[in-house]
Amino acid sequence: MRRIVAFNRVSADGYFATADGNLGWVVPDQEIDKLGGEAVPGSDNMILFGRRTYDMFESFWPHVVGDSPTAPDPHAPGRQSPELRAMGVWINEATKVVFSRTRKGVTWKNSRLLHDEALKREPGRDIMIFGSGSIASQLTEHGLIDEYQFIAGPLLLGCGRSLLSGVPKTVKLNLLEAKPYPSGNVMLRYARAK
Amino acid sequence: MRRIVAFNRVSADGYFATADGNLGWVVPDQEIDKLGGEAVPGSDNMILFGRRTYDMFESFWPHVVGDSPTAPDPHAPGRQSPELRAMGVWINEATKVVFSRTRKGVTWKNSRLLHDEALKREPGRDIMIFGSGSIASQLTEHGLIDEYQFIAGPLLLGCGRSLLSGVPKTVKLNLLEAKPYPSGNVMLRYARAK
Repeated sequence: MRRIVAFNRVSADGYFATADGNLGWVVPDQEIDKLGGEAVPGSDNMILFGRRTYDMFESFWPHVVGDSPTAPDPHAPGRQSPELRAMGVWINEATKVVFSRTRKGVTWKNSRLLHDEALKREPGRDIMIFGSGSIASQLTEHGLIDEYQFIAGPLLLGCGRSLLSGVPKTVKLNLLEAKPYPSGNVMLRYARAK
Repeated sequence: MRRIVAFNRVSADGYFATADGNLGWVVPDQEIDKLGGEAVPGSDNMILFGRRTYDMFESFWPHVVGDSPTAPDPHAPGRQSPELRAMGVWINEATKVVFSRTRKGVTWKNSRLLHDEALKREPGRDIMIFGSGSIASQLTEHGLIDEYQFIAGPLLLGCGRSLLSGVPKTVKLNLLEAKPYPSGNVMLRYARAK
């Protein structure tokens, strides 16, 4: 069985997105970016997306490629760091599965719309899910997410959207790691308790 | 100037309260309870409360006193741990200030309703605020909270209430401490960046 891992940037006050979905609040950290860049690229990597997060990622990541010097870098406008470019290779090569009732098609490389597939039963590496609150809530409710990775940033958003909603029962977790970074970000990594 | 310190239990998914305000989800931890018990008691300790959190605390803490063997202990029903009793002495002796438009009076020892006092300008120890989302949001908006202490528990609530809402601007913080406890709780301590 493939594991499903949820990865999220969150604020200290527990929000994972502003009301308008911008990511300008993320506190940059090359050490954390490296974690993404060190992953082995390939289409065997799979990412699950809700439609809203997919829209946001589709408008950004196709422009982050090794040989595209003009694409936007949110961490340093005007140039792309090696860490961001490595992450770009990883995410562009990965298989992207989009849950959507409204989308008719997808244009980003290696993307497909989900109809009715038993993803966890396919062999392969961990399946990632970024943001995608509605999908993450449904998967959480059904006990399908194996690991939650939250990077808590040193800031208060003060309003915004929570990652999970409408999950009817509390889910117990085991803390795997609590690691502070010099930037003030803290990685909190949990496994779903069996 | 007195500092204002916000202390909150939160879930890994960023909620500080369930929809009905119960605290049954808190993961007990004697080491963390000790932090409260080690504080010096006295009326010079001041706690700020929104009306809802005050209601909840007023129905519980007056029953937690050294010589009351029958009072409820949420961590071990039927008995009161020494840590809980020490916390009870501290909180019952402290001065409690309640912000409320609807309350006509207060019955819990050392409590008073707030009219219009410049609390930070009075001399004394740190002023604490537990939960009290509406008050915490207003104080945050006006830059009046000096330190935020979040104890992130190893669980997902899946739905509930966020501590802050309606704060119009992002607030930058400095990470002071990220300390994991054997129970899986993690203390995240932040100062408001100046």
